[in-house]
Amino acid sequence: MAKVADKYLKVDPWAVIEEGFDPERNRVSESIFSLGNEYMGVRGYPEEGYSGDTLLGSYFNGLYEEHAIGNHYKGIIRSLRYMVNAVDWLYTRITVDGEQLDLAHSKVMGFSRRLDFRTGTYCRQFVWVLESGKELKITFTRLVSMTMSHLGLQQVAFEPLNFTGEVQVCTGLDFGAVHEERGQSMWRSLRSGSAGGITAIMAETLTTGNRLFSGFVLHSPAELNPCAVERDRFAGQSFRLPLIEGERIHYTKLAVNCADTGNARSQEQLWEEGMKLASAAAGLEAENVFEAQAVYWKEIWETSDICIEGDPENQQGIRFCIFQLYQTYHGDHPGYNIGAKGLTGEAYRGLAFWDTESYCLPFYLFNNPKAARSLLEFRYKTLPEAMQRARDVDCEGACYPIATIDGTESCDLWQHSNLQLHVGTAVSYGIWHYVKNTGDKEFLYSKGAEMLIQISRFYATRGQWGARSGKYGYFGVMGPDEFQLMVNNNCYINLMAKKLFEYTGDALAEMRESVPERFAQLAALTGLRDDELADWASKAEHMKIPADPASGVYEEHDGFFDMPHMDIHSIPVTEFPLYSNWSYDRLYRYDMIKQPDVLMFMFLYNSEFTREAKLANYDYYEPRCIHESSLSPSIHSILASELGKHDEAYRFFEFATRLDLDNYNRNTREGLHTTSIAAAWMNIVYGFGGMRSDAERLSFSPTLPERWTSYSFHVQYEGVLVRVEVGQKGIQLQAVSGGGTEMMVYGQRVSVGPDIVSLPLAEGVVAG
Amino acid sequence: MAKVADKYLKVDPWAVIEEGFDPERNRVSESIFSLGNEYMGVRGYPEEGYSGDTLLGSYFNGLYEEHAIGNHYKGIIRSLRYMVNAVDWLYTRITVDGEQLDLAHSKVMGFSRRLDFRTGTYCRQFVWVLESGKELKITFTRLVSMTMSHLGLQQVAFEPLNFTGEVQVCTGLDFGAVHEERGQSMWRSLRSGSAGGITAIMAETLTTGNRLFSGFVLHSPAELNPCAVERDRFAGQSFRLPLIEGERIHYTKLAVNCADTGNARSQEQLWEEGMKLASAAAGLEAENVFEAQAVYWKEIWETSDICIEGDPENQQGIRFCIFQLYQTYHGDHPGYNIGAKGLTGEAYRGLAFWDTESYCLPFYLFNNPKAARSLLEFRYKTLPEAMQRARDVDCEGACYPIATIDGTESCDLWQHSNLQLHVGTAVSYGIWHYVKNTGDKEFLYSKGAEMLIQISRFYATRGQWGARSGKYGYFGVMGPDEFQLMVNNNCYINLMAKKLFEYTGDALAEMRESVPERFAQLAALTGLRDDELADWASKAEHMKIPADPASGVYEEHDGFFDMPHMDIHSIPVTEFPLYSNWSYDRLYRYDMIKQPDVLMFMFLYNSEFTREAKLANYDYYEPRCIHESSLSPSIHSILASELGKHDEAYRFFEFATRLDLDNYNRNTREGLHTTSIAAAWMNIVYGFGGMRSDAERLSFSPTLPERWTSYSFHVQYEGVLVRVEVGQKGIQLQAVSGGGTEMMVYGQRVSVGPDIVSLPLAEGVVAG
Repeated sequence: MAKVADKYLKVDPWAVIEEGFDPERNRVSESIFSLGNEYMGVRGYPEEGYSGDTLLGSYFNGLYEEHAIGNHYKGIIRSLRYMVNAVDWLYTRITVDGEQLDLAHSKVMGFSRRLDFRTGTYCRQFVWVLESGKELKITFTRLVSMTMSHLGLQQVAFEPLNFTGEVQVCTGLDFGAVHEERGQSMWRSLRSGSAGGITAIMAETLTTGNRLFSGFVLHSPAELNPCAVERDRFAGQSFRLPLIEGERIHYTKLAVNCADTGNARSQEQLWEEGMKLASAAAGLEAENVFEAQAVYWKEIWETSDICIEGDPENQQGIRFCIFQLYQTYHGDHPGYNIGAKGLTGEAYRGLAFWDTESYCLPFYLFNNPKAARSLLEFRYKTLPEAMQRARDVDCEGACYPIATIDGTESCDLWQHSNLQLHVGTAVSYGIWHYVKNTGDKEFLYSKGAEMLIQISRFYATRGQWGARSGKYGYFGVMGPDEFQLMVNNNCYINLMAKKLFEYTGDALAEMRESVPERFAQLAALTGLRDDELADWASKAEHMKIPADPASGVYEEHDGFFDMPHMDIHSIPVTEFPLYSNWSYDRLYRYDMIKQPDVLMFMFLYNSEFTREAKLANYDYYEPRCIHESSLSPSIHSILASELGKHDEAYRFFEFATRLDLDNYNRNTREGLHTTSIAAAWMNIVYGFGGMRSDAERLSFSPTLPERWTSYSFHVQYEGVLVRVEVGQKGIQLQAVSGGGTEMMVYGQRVSVGPDIVSLPLAEGVVAG
Repeated sequence: MAKVADKYLKVDPWAVIEEGFDPERNRVSESIFSLGNEYMGVRGYPEEGYSGDTLLGSYFNGLYEEHAIGNHYKGIIRSLRYMVNAVDWLYTRITVDGEQLDLAHSKVMGFSRRLDFRTGTYCRQFVWVLESGKELKITFTRLVSMTMSHLGLQQVAFEPLNFTGEVQVCTGLDFGAVHEERGQSMWRSLRSGSAGGITAIMAETLTTGNRLFSGFVLHSPAELNPCAVERDRFAGQSFRLPLIEGERIHYTKLAVNCADTGNARSQEQLWEEGMKLASAAAGLEAENVFEAQAVYWKEIWETSDICIEGDPENQQGIRFCIFQLYQTYHGDHPGYNIGAKGLTGEAYRGLAFWDTESYCLPFYLFNNPKAARSLLEFRYKTLPEAMQRARDVDCEGACYPIATIDGTESCDLWQHSNLQLHVGTAVSYGIWHYVKNTGDKEFLYSKGAEMLIQISRFYATRGQWGARSGKYGYFGVMGPDEFQLMVNNNCYINLMAKKLFEYTGDALAEMRESVPERFAQLAALTGLRDDELADWASKAEHMKIPADPASGVYEEHDGFFDMPHMDIHSIPVTEFPLYSNWSYDRLYRYDMIKQPDVLMFMFLYNSEFTREAKLANYDYYEPRCIHESSLSPSIHSILASELGKHDEAYRFFEFATRLDLDNYNRNTREGLHTTSIAAAWMNIVYGFGGMRSDAERLSFSPTLPERWTSYSFHVQYEGVLVRVEVGQKGIQLQAVSGGGTEMMVYGQRVSVGPDIVSLPLAEGVVAG
């Protein structure tokens, strides 16, 4: 955990502000200043063209390319699909007196940029000092509409400070950007043209034939008289704007993008649909678009804000997290997922992992349950791919991929794709967690139960019986702790599989009783047999859960206790990250763990373990964990809070909300740690707030970090929006909307309604 | 072991004979009819050009190309080196009346080919029936000289059966053949030309710049008046031969090839050296070359023949094995190694594995001890590369590569290259085995001891102490049994490391006492410290050797006894080979083993285990072994013989000598199983002959397979060439040359001299 903050940005409760332009830092800022609306996302790249270091990232959820892998072993993937960078709909080139603006070469003054959490806009401005000494102030404002998924808006304003003249602008839609890993543009132009003020282009990906229509219209108080500019993979318009000293002039580009990843439409249909959307966009006023965006965010903050008094940095940090989470995903499009970097970069190839259900789902579950359900719909939509994957690895049922964009396995390291089984149980846990906290039996009956059956089938065919132990378990696996590469009876996997079998059995029994006809339909659909149910129950009953009976410490896997000991504090700081500095095989030969494994299931099924068990396991595993996953510290912080280790809880929290703002991991340039910032939300609500959502009713055991005056957050529970405020004077709970509900606070049942309920903070729980 | 013989070739005690041409089988025969002389090798491809399925393989020992691998983890190789196909010095094109010979299209009659073990030649003949009905008998004879490494000879004879006319021939040296895996020729032409009857070309590999000179001269009773033919990567001559009905006419091509893999010479020097060799070749008479070859082989058969009476198929088989072993390697060039396919194909990329010391060394040790030493010299020559590899994987000393052509690691599967440690101990075993049986202390002092020190350093830094057991061992390894991919405390690896440490300690102690000055030099050279010796002794003493005390069965690795059981006989025959038909991860989750692991060290250190221990372990592991390595059955056969399981011993032997002749594994097309055929020799000598070479003196406990009348073999031991004959009437031992020696027979010391010693066969040891 040798992390050092890179304190660079200005602290502000409602915005991220950068002053001055540092080319070395440009990619980091591009990630931080990303905009998105779950349908599409753009990094904060300089849209006017930049010959310095930049990642010109414009992404569309679920839009992918594919490349083949030369491996011939059965069960190892032969091609992988990845998020491909798409149209640069912000493309702009600005020329004055023959001199073209390029921040890598041009002289600029007063550079600043701002990402505003309340307006949902990214604004950048500076004064361009031409070689002639002419000074032109330029302001770029952009927005990706949260209310109209296909819509993006760009506004460019010019104000000549010391001259009168003109500026030449070329603006367009560019499919020519090179994909950084593949070294070429992955697009083929299909059609382009202009009609009725709309300039449009449609292209498809080279291999997968995913299609994207992009079109724009221009608005300006000035008369633009644009000329069409067409070339391969590009459609644009060129025009001149008169500049009068001291006067501001601007134009607005309203762009619409319409993707078709499954070839649901013909080329002709997609073009027509895109043109229709563009026509509708043409009728919009920029001010109304800005206004709608601000209204949208106002409502979000009313239901999802976390307010921290007395800690401006974490205040800014957690709002940035919430802002980016909503931009990445808010459930308007069932069947979308959350990539490890959201729509903000190309690391991890835009793929989604088990992070979705394990780290992100709780945020949505308690802020926007509909979005939580939509996330689970992704897994339902991709059930056929998971069933194919199970067959590929000689099993039955459904094997959910460790990394995916479209449901197919896209991890090209077999040791992860074939040994890491914890996505399936993350999905079943997600179903259980969602249904338990929302009571949405309809989802369970219509989709969840079918997934549970197929996931159970996979776990019942992938597992084996130990020849000597006579116990059931999983051989040849990698648990969440990726520093134990191929082990037998990983405790997490075994326990999660046991819970899967039990929940599947319970859910199906309940369904058989409550809705016998639907159960019969489901059984017919899936070919469910009673002997399968018995088999799963038996495997759950005989599941091996390795543990030391004397200490109560679970053994992470068979033989873990004999793994050679590594004093992790003896590792020189220069050797981190170990993946880069240690021989690959060396990583896997110690009792050193990368991220919580045993502790992870003690978090997920928190109520089922005694305080003593949690303490024993925490004290054993925490000193062995090097947190070489950004998801790791939050889980430790949450458990430390529960165990009264308040200083430690706060230390683990320290990087959580500002992981990207302060570039702690030195890799924010590759994109935001989107799923880790979901964990930051958990860190506050489950950690300091002490929320638990795995027992009978939602419960809280709040503590207050010493350096905070107070904090508040919101949860939606059983249709009620509850505001929880924790301050030095005590705890206040209030149902902001939706009537009332009952919750547990420090183990006592409390009725929460429209009137504020005040409770004292438990003694001695003021944290670090 | 579901193997079916493909009985196709004629049985002959001294040759391989194929009658009729089957295009489907062409690649198999190309492998079988390979010629080589350890310096170079050629597959039995149709040199006249063949548009059907062919692998035009011409190889030079240690000549390699390289390609990069896109992996970024430390310690995983970033490029690999592989044996590259080189000049086709047999290149020939034959045209009559404008019609070009091509076995894929041409009509031929009476096709036959013969590989002769006594003359060391490959001869192929057939009658070409032209479209006009003209019949031309053509005979191709080729030879790769065993006495002049650079020399190859090709003789082509024509006999028109029913016409008079002429044949047009183009013969040359072609560097243009495509490398099958890389899809292009890997050569760049440097220079070519003709002078003094010599046609020559020199080229280098594209990436590594390995260089090869090739030149030829033509001899013929007829006047050829050839014309030079030059094009990129090709130099040749074209000529016409008059054909007179019923008369035979021929020409001879004497080719010399001179490789420079290390750029030891300048281009100019290599050209001059090649031209000098070609000039010398120009003065040779073909008959003398044939004669020298026959004399060479006569001597080989006098010292190395195995004669089997009463079993023509195995007689042919074992002579084929011995013939191909000598062609692949006979130690004239210290520092050469033996690839898995020798010089007969491109599977396994021409790389050498631990097979060299574990399976091939004994053949040379007891047939040609100088060659055995030369093999060990390869490891000494590549000690610097092994030391670099150790540093690459964060260890000290020398880590010998699992797969290599030049000493660098060239296995691109990290699970093998980083986890399989058994090459180092194979080398140390080889040193021990060689020194023990030859008494060559000079080699030990000058080279062996230095290797032992560096190998010990690697094993002393790669190993770790178990946190719970307090024992030393190896974590994260794959043993010889490749069906247990990543385990801890593999019994074979731990035991071999223990023996390594002990032998290194003993050898150095002996050296310190016997040759103190040389010891001091060695200690200075290697920086050897006394505390290292103590450390190695301690690690040997505390080495973990997992075993079940009750049964005496060694546990292949920690937890093996709990691995889920697989009844290997329940696997449908259609699922073999499992690598192709089972999901990759599934292979590694059973108590099913691929090849001997525990049994392997019971073979290598045979005298250290009781009969009871061997029996218990054989009975446990044999039923779990599927022999998905061609090296596996021989070890089982040898142990089965020792344990009196004679039927089983013979069943395991059945595929040994004819693995390739009968294409049992259906992959002889890729090249010969060169190292497996070395195991066939061991199967007879160690198995039926009951030879053991790991105790005080060489010993024999012969049995006689029931279907054999008798068999005899030769061993060189302490400078004495001993012939051992085992027949129904008893055993006969005779020192054929070199005076006399003492050996153990059935545990009794026997003096063997020029006079035949006759002993009875032990009762009840006539095998299946």
